[in-house]
Amino acid sequence: MKFLTTPYNDSIVLIGPSEQELRIDRIKRLMGESNIDAIIITNHANIYYLTGRVFDGYIFIPVSGEIVYFVRRPVNLEGGKIVNIRKPEDIASHITDIPTTLGLEYDLIPFSTVIRLQNLFPQATPTNASAIMRTARSIKTATEIELIKRSGIEHVNVHRQIPQLYQPGMTDIDLQIEIEYLLRKHGCLGQFRISGDSMELYMGNLLVGDNADTPSPYDFAMGGAGMTPSLPVGAAGTPIKPGNTIMIDMNGNFTGHMTDMTRTYACGPIADIAVKAHNCSIDIHHALVKAAVPGVKCSDLYNLALTMAGDAGLAQYFMGHRQHAGFIGHGIGIEVNELPVIAPRSRDVISCNMVIAIEPKFVIPAVGAVGIENTYLATPTGLVNLTELDEQIIQL
Amino acid sequence: MKFLTTPYNDSIVLIGPSEQELRIDRIKRLMGESNIDAIIITNHANIYYLTGRVFDGYIFIPVSGEIVYFVRRPVNLEGGKIVNIRKPEDIASHITDIPTTLGLEYDLIPFSTVIRLQNLFPQATPTNASAIMRTARSIKTATEIELIKRSGIEHVNVHRQIPQLYQPGMTDIDLQIEIEYLLRKHGCLGQFRISGDSMELYMGNLLVGDNADTPSPYDFAMGGAGMTPSLPVGAAGTPIKPGNTIMIDMNGNFTGHMTDMTRTYACGPIADIAVKAHNCSIDIHHALVKAAVPGVKCSDLYNLALTMAGDAGLAQYFMGHRQHAGFIGHGIGIEVNELPVIAPRSRDVISCNMVIAIEPKFVIPAVGAVGIENTYLATPTGLVNLTELDEQIIQL
Repeated sequence: MKFLTTPYNDSIVLIGPSEQELRIDRIKRLMGESNIDAIIITNHANIYYLTGRVFDGYIFIPVSGEIVYFVRRPVNLEGGKIVNIRKPEDIASHITDIPTTLGLEYDLIPFSTVIRLQNLFPQATPTNASAIMRTARSIKTATEIELIKRSGIEHVNVHRQIPQLYQPGMTDIDLQIEIEYLLRKHGCLGQFRISGDSMELYMGNLLVGDNADTPSPYDFAMGGAGMTPSLPVGAAGTPIKPGNTIMIDMNGNFTGHMTDMTRTYACGPIADIAVKAHNCSIDIHHALVKAAVPGVKCSDLYNLALTMAGDAGLAQYFMGHRQHAGFIGHGIGIEVNELPVIAPRSRDVISCNMVIAIEPKFVIPAVGAVGIENTYLATPTGLVNLTELDEQIIQL
Repeated sequence: MKFLTTPYNDSIVLIGPSEQELRIDRIKRLMGESNIDAIIITNHANIYYLTGRVFDGYIFIPVSGEIVYFVRRPVNLEGGKIVNIRKPEDIASHITDIPTTLGLEYDLIPFSTVIRLQNLFPQATPTNASAIMRTARSIKTATEIELIKRSGIEHVNVHRQIPQLYQPGMTDIDLQIEIEYLLRKHGCLGQFRISGDSMELYMGNLLVGDNADTPSPYDFAMGGAGMTPSLPVGAAGTPIKPGNTIMIDMNGNFTGHMTDMTRTYACGPIADIAVKAHNCSIDIHHALVKAAVPGVKCSDLYNLALTMAGDAGLAQYFMGHRQHAGFIGHGIGIEVNELPVIAPRSRDVISCNMVIAIEPKFVIPAVGAVGIENTYLATPTGLVNLTELDEQIIQL
């Protein structure tokens, strides 16, 4: 059993001082541009970004001056300016320089929590700091890129072994459970971090045949009925049959910074239109790899993909059939739904060191889902693949 | 592979009309008592409670009158009064009877979402409806109790097989991965629903030796360093050694309504004080089973447990050692942290048909965690165990 992450110690900051400075400086620059004096961060993913660890508490970041960690739990942390508290109301007396404008994570934290934090500094004008954190996190540091690359290597290793897991007579969930076990044995952390409430998932999505065409409530590219109406997405107990495809899009979180990767499998030949659609997905990837240079609008990338699917006569199957997803790619790192969003109304623009999962997929009735997904690093000359593996339909 | 939940269909309500009426009537009664005209529900666990399925959207519940389902996704639902929408702003024009007081899930949904929903009816006085939903859900219906019982049966079946999974030389995470695999093969749904942000977990907590004494950021009874600072709880790669205990508290969600259950294992003899503490946990269980009759205050139950631990000379090890948890039990059902809370300042009172996990545990330095957890149904004569299995320390 190998696990790829930092060993445990009691330091509140586990990412190294220069790495933290890099992340904090970016946030402070964005705060300055928005005329925000101070922000208070409490969302776990953001705390993890800022320190390299999750704790229960609050990070107070003034636009100039030292950051303060207000920690409820665990009780044993050390290093940096730490104040152990029991409740958020304990924060105010430790802040001498009262902010004029206070940024909070309006899009992430409950209404009740925002009200309690606003009441700490009734003089301050409250404002939404969610976009600052999302924007800062959309450009990955070298350390983050390294962690994502390491996830990609293991993610690919697991995909290579999937054909050996398949046995005739399996259902989708049978195969999924074997892949889950293999992922864990390779050091997959299991957790699948998603920002907000628009998605829920357990270890990934494996879709066989027409189950891929069952609409789901979630904001994923694909659907599926799921094993339960309490988690209606993915594998549904569907038998794996010749002529159907098996789309496998499973958890790539091996380091706290994850990759997203999909390959399509089949046992036996599948209908020509499905092969055509799969090849169209590959062609879209190759086109986007070249087109996605810094400065390019993500909406233009979406439209390029949509045009290629339309030109191939496959528009009605693109990103779903009964229900269509509204995007073809997304930033990824600590969470699966980071910036940028590759969607028609996205205002995002490609920048160097963004990490982006691209997933042009099709759902072909009576066959299943086809297409691939890779995680890419944005560079000055286009996208570099971090999940390299045979892109054709793989026979089980 | 057997899975215990409802098969997929397109009905928006999967729990049956009389069952839904039971749940809605309870909520409407609580709304009446709080003078709330209407509530809008969007949290997934609450939507699942109200309909038996998760969808992306909003349920409008007037204190008198028909409930309306505003559905973003999936697009294929039918039955009941459904309005397909793209965004929450589409709701207002479909509501003719404007509420005077509008309840929203302030403790659960992001600040930004609450503001958007409040803006639908600027004339209405907004208020917090979180407590109404938590209170309604704390008393389980017969259908819910049946689902929890079925989870309990499978949960116990898996625990019975754990000794066969152990092999000398294993670490905590090695054993945990084998149990995860067994759980999934028994139909465990994988997802572990938690209300709010105070906890994160993947499939449960397995603690060996002194790792049980590592404080965690989360609001669980026990801690552990975890395999990664991005999810710092539970198994940490600790070798399983003679003289240490192995506390196993894993996912019991087989039906969308889960049980919570812990047993302590060991390989070889352990120190007398740990055996004594384990027996104290069992004694506390037996005392609470009798004491927890309807009308009893949960704070009194907590104090009874604390007194018993103190009388045994074990106070310093009770509910942790370096860091102490502030409760010894909790309601459970769709989520792991429901009402009531068995804690010193809890205002909850035992009622019939509450389902409560009781977990008096101890952390003994150099040995590990001991104690057991069961899920109980509250009845007129006390608690009935839904997770019956040998309570002594089980040899691996």
